[in-house]
Amino acid sequence: MSAALEAAARGERGANPLVGAAVLAADGTVVTGWHRGAGTSHAEVDAVQRARTAGIDLSTATMVVTLEPCNHTGRSGPCSQFLLDAGIRRVVHAIDDPNPRASGGAAHLRAHGVEVVSGVRAEEAERLNARWIAAQRAARPYVTLKLAQSLDGRIAAADGTSRWITSAESRAHAHTLRARVDAILVGTGTALADDPRLTARTPDGRPAGAQPRPVVMGFRELAAGSHLARDPRTLHLRTRDPLTALRALAAAGVGHVLVEGGAHIAGAFLAAGLVDELHLYTAPILLGDGLPALAGLDVGTLAEAHRFVTDPAGPAVPARLGPDTFHRLVPAVAHDGEQSTGDEGARTPAVIAGTADPPLSPAPTPAVAHDPPRLSAPALSSH
Amino acid sequence: MSAALEAAARGERGANPLVGAAVLAADGTVVTGWHRGAGTSHAEVDAVQRARTAGIDLSTATMVVTLEPCNHTGRSGPCSQFLLDAGIRRVVHAIDDPNPRASGGAAHLRAHGVEVVSGVRAEEAERLNARWIAAQRAARPYVTLKLAQSLDGRIAAADGTSRWITSAESRAHAHTLRARVDAILVGTGTALADDPRLTARTPDGRPAGAQPRPVVMGFRELAAGSHLARDPRTLHLRTRDPLTALRALAAAGVGHVLVEGGAHIAGAFLAAGLVDELHLYTAPILLGDGLPALAGLDVGTLAEAHRFVTDPAGPAVPARLGPDTFHRLVPAVAHDGEQSTGDEGARTPAVIAGTADPPLSPAPTPAVAHDPPRLSAPALSSH
Repeated sequence: MSAALEAAARGERGANPLVGAAVLAADGTVVTGWHRGAGTSHAEVDAVQRARTAGIDLSTATMVVTLEPCNHTGRSGPCSQFLLDAGIRRVVHAIDDPNPRASGGAAHLRAHGVEVVSGVRAEEAERLNARWIAAQRAARPYVTLKLAQSLDGRIAAADGTSRWITSAESRAHAHTLRARVDAILVGTGTALADDPRLTARTPDGRPAGAQPRPVVMGFRELAAGSHLARDPRTLHLRTRDPLTALRALAAAGVGHVLVEGGAHIAGAFLAAGLVDELHLYTAPILLGDGLPALAGLDVGTLAEAHRFVTDPAGPAVPARLGPDTFHRLVPAVAHDGEQSTGDEGARTPAVIAGTADPPLSPAPTPAVAHDPPRLSAPALSSH
Repeated sequence: MSAALEAAARGERGANPLVGAAVLAADGTVVTGWHRGAGTSHAEVDAVQRARTAGIDLSTATMVVTLEPCNHTGRSGPCSQFLLDAGIRRVVHAIDDPNPRASGGAAHLRAHGVEVVSGVRAEEAERLNARWIAAQRAARPYVTLKLAQSLDGRIAAADGTSRWITSAESRAHAHTLRARVDAILVGTGTALADDPRLTARTPDGRPAGAQPRPVVMGFRELAAGSHLARDPRTLHLRTRDPLTALRALAAAGVGHVLVEGGAHIAGAFLAAGLVDELHLYTAPILLGDGLPALAGLDVGTLAEAHRFVTDPAGPAVPARLGPDTFHRLVPAVAHDGEQSTGDEGARTPAVIAGTADPPLSPAPTPAVAHDPPRLSAPALSSH
């Protein structure tokens, strides 16, 4: 399981959890595999393929995996059946799949005579994907917040100039994440100020193969003729409440959303405890007075600070991107259990400063799954 | 010279420049040495000692050094005489010593029959110590600015709470620099708000062997009974102008000053171009609204941002200090030559917002030298 947990940490966080697998051969040989993100092979498939290449006899081997093999056909087929077909007779997994649509793999395997052991090092496996599991339970997408700022936490100079604070290397890096997410969300303020396209581009400036869905959140109308207003895929969520927005996105099939700002949107998601990971790009410049990266965070005293840790499934120190640094952080576990993850029914939703939130039609049964389908039809009000 | 330049970068910046030396033996063996900061062996002495240990015949070797061997007795004796006594007959150095009190080493060596070649890779050697050289020419101390902040550039929460934003590891690290500098400077605002001692402590909380001089800058009186008011070594500089303060410190024998804030003092030193290096401690927390690390930076638009680069004489990526990161930066070379280093006679001094600066008695001939003496008698108004 150590090898499987280490392999899991090599993956990319997003709509799918980090999952690692290890094939333990009868002679003690260990071959690992891991999941590289939505749309790619599941960890068990990756490990079995490597085991076959290594000439391992799968009928006498044990499949060790950090998450219960899925029993559901998304962009990949069900792993439970794949393991049966591969001739695996013994499976050890850490935690059960929290997604009702994907669970049942262990039962399927047992029904076909496979020995299944569950709960091995479950605590570690759960900790590795704590935020993803919380998102699943809350039936909401996994949320990445991106901040691109100066050393002193500013996203624009006093006169509003902000192109470009971060380097070309940082921006290219950010576009690789854009190409991996299902949706990119900004506030109406950012949409009106910057007229963004919210598209994913390759380093040479061409559109990436997969394009996220552009989402704008708030009550103001988009400017006629703006890029987002002209994009038929744009989803305009008329709410200021992050959890309401996320539930609408889940209903629209979004499994992973990238929140790109502005300061009030970022602050509202943080204040609501709805940021699962923070991608922080920092340029080595000081701007002094200027637009702060965050607003409305609702922290009055130091003890209320939002605390993060370096993502344990990543490098221990920030990476260099040209002159900039890139730091991937995840929320620290709250000591008092107060940090919201969207996993509570009765919590008062944090609302961005302004008018009260009008009722939004209740979201249908959420469709967050292992492999959320790419969107085809727009939901809610589209442009 | 490559080996000497690499060795130089292993040193610590401060009152003395980074200097590296290499002894090139007749058989091609190379032994390097470097200077570890004020009060320790000069690079040439370090290299000669290592060469002796390695059994190198110094009479047929070449001493390669990034800075002209000094000709002055500070805390160490003159290197020029040391090299003569060691039997060195050939010296190659990169740049001449910009300090009139320490220069003359090459002439002394030549007068005693040593072959001296100067100017080898002078540009690289000068770049390595560009800010130190500028400080020397301006007859002012070398300035380190320390900022200890949240990810979003805040040094206190909205209610002023700030103990402790950074970790115990970060604070212990900061105390090692405190023990290396000649003086620590804060504004009267910080002195009144925090009642600091400005002492250097070892990791176990005891006073470090060497103690910096406490310096407070500004017009407000210290609170009677405060730690700084009761410390007889405290120097109170009644000015808001950073360059005026630095010239007074030079006159008091300070070769390296650590500026610790608050936000207006940090902003004033930055705005005046008088920060030679930036030590940035960042805790993985978000504070949102709170006290910004910098004020009065006088940056109106992005093009006016203060730009930094990771110190080339240090690690390429920020280091971890417990949960925090530590990043050592130096100012990027200005493209338009506008960045002040205190090296200009006629520049309008940056003044911290507030009343005009009253005249201060002109500083006597500055005494910034290779090894500035530890202070004994207080200068200017002392408590």
